[in-house]
Amino acid sequence: MDLIVTLACNDHPGIVFAMTNAILQCDGNIIENQQFTDPATNTFVMRTRFETIQEFAQVEKTMKSAIKDESAVITLREYSQKKKVLVLVTKESHCLQELLYLQEIGEMEIEIPLIVSNRNELSGHATDHNIEFHYLPISQNEGESKADFENQLRAFIAKHEIDLIVLARFMQILSDEFCQEYAGRIINIHHSFLPGFKGAKPYHQAYDRGVKIIGASAHFVTGDLDEGPIIAQDVAHVSHSATPDDLIMIGRDIERRVLSRAVRNYAQDRIFIVGNRTVVFHD
Amino acid sequence: MDLIVTLACNDHPGIVFAMTNAILQCDGNIIENQQFTDPATNTFVMRTRFETIQEFAQVEKTMKSAIKDESAVITLREYSQKKKVLVLVTKESHCLQELLYLQEIGEMEIEIPLIVSNRNELSGHATDHNIEFHYLPISQNEGESKADFENQLRAFIAKHEIDLIVLARFMQILSDEFCQEYAGRIINIHHSFLPGFKGAKPYHQAYDRGVKIIGASAHFVTGDLDEGPIIAQDVAHVSHSATPDDLIMIGRDIERRVLSRAVRNYAQDRIFIVGNRTVVFHD
Amino acid sequence: MDLIVTLACNDHPGIVFAMTNAILQCDGNIIENQQFTDPATNTFVMRTRFETIQEFAQVEKTMKSAIKDESAVITLREYSQKKKVLVLVTKESHCLQELLYLQEIGEMEIEIPLIVSNRNELSGHATDHNIEFHYLPISQNEGESKADFENQLRAFIAKHEIDLIVLARFMQILSDEFCQEYAGRIINIHHSFLPGFKGAKPYHQAYDRGVKIIGASAHFVTGDLDEGPIIAQDVAHVSHSATPDDLIMIGRDIERRVLSRAVRNYAQDRIFIVGNRTVVFHD
Amino acid sequence: MDLIVTLACNDHPGIVFAMTNAILQCDGNIIENQQFTDPATNTFVMRTRFETIQEFAQVEKTMKSAIKDESAVITLREYSQKKKVLVLVTKESHCLQELLYLQEIGEMEIEIPLIVSNRNELSGHATDHNIEFHYLPISQNEGESKADFENQLRAFIAKHEIDLIVLARFMQILSDEFCQEYAGRIINIHHSFLPGFKGAKPYHQAYDRGVKIIGASAHFVTGDLDEGPIIAQDVAHVSHSATPDDLIMIGRDIERRVLSRAVRNYAQDRIFIVGNRTVVFHD
Repeated sequence: MDLIVTLACNDHPGIVFAMTNAILQCDGNIIENQQFTDPATNTFVMRTRFETIQEFAQVEKTMKSAIKDESAVITLREYSQKKKVLVLVTKESHCLQELLYLQEIGEMEIEIPLIVSNRNELSGHATDHNIEFHYLPISQNEGESKADFENQLRAFIAKHEIDLIVLARFMQILSDEFCQEYAGRIINIHHSFLPGFKGAKPYHQAYDRGVKIIGASAHFVTGDLDEGPIIAQDVAHVSHSATPDDLIMIGRDIERRVLSRAVRNYAQDRIFIVGNRTVVFHD
Repeated sequence: MDLIVTLACNDHPGIVFAMTNAILQCDGNIIENQQFTDPATNTFVMRTRFETIQEFAQVEKTMKSAIKDESAVITLREYSQKKKVLVLVTKESHCLQELLYLQEIGEMEIEIPLIVSNRNELSGHATDHNIEFHYLPISQNEGESKADFENQLRAFIAKHEIDLIVLARFMQILSDEFCQEYAGRIINIHHSFLPGFKGAKPYHQAYDRGVKIIGASAHFVTGDLDEGPIIAQDVAHVSHSATPDDLIMIGRDIERRVLSRAVRNYAQDRIFIVGNRTVVFHD
Repeated sequence: MDLIVTLACNDHPGIVFAMTNAILQCDGNIIENQQFTDPATNTFVMRTRFETIQEFAQVEKTMKSAIKDESAVITLREYSQKKKVLVLVTKESHCLQELLYLQEIGEMEIEIPLIVSNRNELSGHATDHNIEFHYLPISQNEGESKADFENQLRAFIAKHEIDLIVLARFMQILSDEFCQEYAGRIINIHHSFLPGFKGAKPYHQAYDRGVKIIGASAHFVTGDLDEGPIIAQDVAHVSHSATPDDLIMIGRDIERRVLSRAVRNYAQDRIFIVGNRTVVFHD
Repeated sequence: MDLIVTLACNDHPGIVFAMTNAILQCDGNIIENQQFTDPATNTFVMRTRFETIQEFAQVEKTMKSAIKDESAVITLREYSQKKKVLVLVTKESHCLQELLYLQEIGEMEIEIPLIVSNRNELSGHATDHNIEFHYLPISQNEGESKADFENQLRAFIAKHEIDLIVLARFMQILSDEFCQEYAGRIINIHHSFLPGFKGAKPYHQAYDRGVKIIGASAHFVTGDLDEGPIIAQDVAHVSHSATPDDLIMIGRDIERRVLSRAVRNYAQDRIFIVGNRTVVFHD
């Protein structure tokens, strides 16, 4: 059996010793091990992949009692057990399409039981991949309607035992309440520029400013839409001859790549939130 | 004779025809030719390198009268004639060092007749390269002192026929008046982050925010220090394990590369300012 | 009418003048213009996009007689007229999928009238996009069978007026005769490593050698499969922890991006072959 | 006291446990810890940085006996103790210059007690940094002369307790005997292309082939000059307009960056050789 254990706790001497001792007791052989202590928050995080012939329940008991510290959060799962992902979309297909494609060719080890949208345009993508698609419009009378929308999401999340919610160019803002309820489980993607731009038509602003680089950031969603811990970022160089439409096209390409990288890292338990930052153990 | 002619003017049909006609009259053979029309400002810009056996004065007369349009700005110079650069520094050496080094090994075709600083720390770099160094302190009573400083700069610029002023980590803000006087002739370098940060200790802010990319921008200086037209930008990827000091170190590396690229493009007449943007004809 | 004219000819003074003169006679207004003289072959190449209110036939007549030189090859087409592409595939979908996706969202201005494969696995991709799919097996008795295969390709190419043949991970070698017949019209994609590896299982060889970078090259196909003029290349950084399977996965990602870039440049008439090199006018 | 311990040994269960147990016995607090098992050679490698108040000798005793396995190679040093580097150069200054500069501004934690060259051109760089420079010509009667040269190197290495020999564009080939004697302690830098080129004037070959990417590799030197384990690689994109001289200039820039990265990783004990590959623990 191939297992992934993760640990986050307050840092103190002896943690790695205790964890590796527990793994030894499980007859475990370590395949990968990564750890990091975040100095700002004094948080120790660790991700270990190991093989064992013991049963899961027994291993779980040993590992979960390895660290006595009350701050310790320990997770254990079989490496082959895929995380369940709910994808929220609106009209633009590039991020959804990339996730579906990578999953299909075995390069994104997630399960997507359903896709939810506030519009109907992308239902065909779900159909092509035999995935449930739910069209849940959010009406003008937004407050009420969004509350309904989020309640239906809650029901889907519970029913399908969703691990992660991916906002794949979902153009609605989720309520603070919802975001806090699923803190650390919602990933969003958005463009990033040097310098940054606020407000409408960011690519047009970037064009007017003559930027030579455009980028995208994938981040966890907290109450404030664009401000959660960053997971992944990337950029592309652009020249003076790129029109706003060219920038939008290049932006889409960066967005789908950065979002995929973030989701893949989540799928492999490589991301830890420490304060307002993330630790991402790259392979 | 190997010549570079540049043209900026309002766009209208027939400009390329007129310019190439003029070059033909000069018995010129085009080696490189690049042009671009900026749609936002309707500005046509063109850079042509050509060889001719005619005399400079004769060619200049022909070329400068090629375009009748009053908006036309035409420059002509021998390719081998280097631009004169005044470098302003404070304490940090990385940008200055890079410019001096590239110049020395023949990869940066500029002349640096003098280096000016508001501090004395970097005088050794000037001495090593046999370059005049002027230490012009700017006292606490800043207004007056800075006016003096800028007046001395003006004198140096006139005396040495300086083409370009490079702020190579010069930690003082030049007056709006000075910046406007030398508009399009002052290049600055500064860090850039995704998202951007205002205020002190930007690398510490970037660290706290957990950015995965840090960058630098070289730009022309207008009145507002960081907001002139961008010439070049680049970034580096950083991970959670990079400390603020690591970010600063990586930032220095990007800064010197981006500044050098901008200065080299200036040295080769590749940069045109159109509105708040630049056109940069890459080789 | 928005037109693209391209010219390739022996270099001599006055070409740009002659071309821009012809465009003026067409009442043309230049939108983009790029040119380059390849010193090794003394070949001048030029790509100009211009607008005119004259009729296509009249413009064509003027432009095609602009350069008297016998070496001149001039092409003219409407910007909106898409090139027709035949895609050849075998089993791997990543390159095909990317082309289809980009075309679908309007980021790849080509028409794909048909997909041909020596296997049947990817027929579903064609069906999903309402594209003809032809399964043409190449039997063990290869010589004869490949001749049949290529004859059927010739018929398809003629019938659909195909401009470009894209080998999107097509795992058969086309005959020298076929390649020469369609010289400059067949693009292939393959992995590239530093250093390079010959023979089977290149990713395993790269792994054994501990490379820190893997890459891909898109190139025109001449008789010798991997050795035609290079159009586009890119790389990704890899670490010691990447397994051969990881390298293959990363390789697929680079391949689809590099092939798309090459095909897009072809679609926009940006590529010229000069000797064994290409000139690619980037936007 | 801030210490770095490294371990390389045959992989078996319990190694991390044993090492962290030993660190606990040293009253050590782990700051950084990285490990990897190379599947091809079944080699386990580990790098741990930890703080302790115990004395060095005592810690050394504990750590060096932590792993009983005969295959185990354990190193321990104070983090502040810099590695001693002998730099070999010929005529080109860019790599030497970069190392000296980075060392000077505190970004390369090495000591350079001496620079040795088979020519005299770069002695000024040594003088500027108050470093011993030895000009040891290698005459035409190469066999004898090179033996002398290498014997003098051996004497220098012994006298200055050199840890690492850096070939910073040293244009002579060291003997197999010498390379084997200092296996894992000699780093070289050379250009890399896609595809690779053998023989003279590689940049001209790359130009003729129309490559769109040029690169450099830093590697350990074994008997065969270019074929030791790769430590670091990087590339730059180039266009058709780059001349062979441009390629050479861009190549120099990549070379100095890649070599510096390799030397920095060596200085921080981040590199392990496993078979023909390296494990490099990036920070």
